[in-house]
Amino acid sequence: MNLLSFWYFVVMYQPVSFAEKFARFAETFQPKVVAQMNDVQFKLVRVEGDFVWHSHPETDEAFLVIEGMLAIDFRDGRVELQPGELFVVPRGKEHKPFAAGETKILLIEPAGTQNTGDAGGAMTAPMDVWI
Amino acid sequence: MNLLSFWYFVVMYQPVSFAEKFARFAETFQPKVVAQMNDVQFKLVRVEGDFVWHSHPETDEAFLVIEGMLAIDFRDGRVELQPGELFVVPRGKEHKPFAAGETKILLIEPAGTQNTGDAGGAMTAPMDVWI
Repeated sequence: MNLLSFWYFVVMYQPVSFAEKFARFAETFQPKVVAQMNDVQFKLVRVEGDFVWHSHPETDEAFLVIEGMLAIDFRDGRVELQPGELFVVPRGKEHKPFAAGETKILLIEPAGTQNTGDAGGAMTAPMDVWI
Repeated sequence: MNLLSFWYFVVMYQPVSFAEKFARFAETFQPKVVAQMNDVQFKLVRVEGDFVWHSHPETDEAFLVIEGMLAIDFRDGRVELQPGELFVVPRGKEHKPFAAGETKILLIEPAGTQNTGDAGGAMTAPMDVWI
């Protein structure tokens, strides 16, 4: 029996590497979709400086810090996130992200969620930009 | 005017710290819910050794490695995940997670998703265990 008979194909599936994806873009506040689970998208974002006050009346929004430090201001307080820390902003709650230095974050939220929510304006980024 | 008039309350919201949560349990293959976004739960799990072959006919399932290394075998191949790497297993795709050494992962999937999916058996863990 030829040993070649034992050969078979095995797919090596590729994971999404956050480091590899972040190396592909430099702009801040422009979410890039890197994966999707059902209707929920995983978006990498670079944050530096102040974002705008806004809310998402239709959905919660999860923030996970990959590198750096993110503050999210609310009308009644604040949360500060370091790498390996997660926070879910409830739907309808006004918030304003801020990072003193360049910070890398993962957003988890439904496809179709606009970065500026109900506020709109100049910082509104294109949606569904996959990298 | 009394300076006390300027005092006001600011809520310091607490993020979910993965390190702090992992310090609370040692058992493997027993997902702990740490946050929820809409109907999607964030579950921390320790993995060591082989899990069982199973699939989730009704939902995709996202794996993010926090520490260690996770392999997920499929009937036609495999994916290997290091820290900072993400993989979404499509609904209905049979898979078997494996970790040679103790590995810490974050699962992101809808509430009500059973760890053993359609397979059941002895490794089926209680659902909705929050820490």
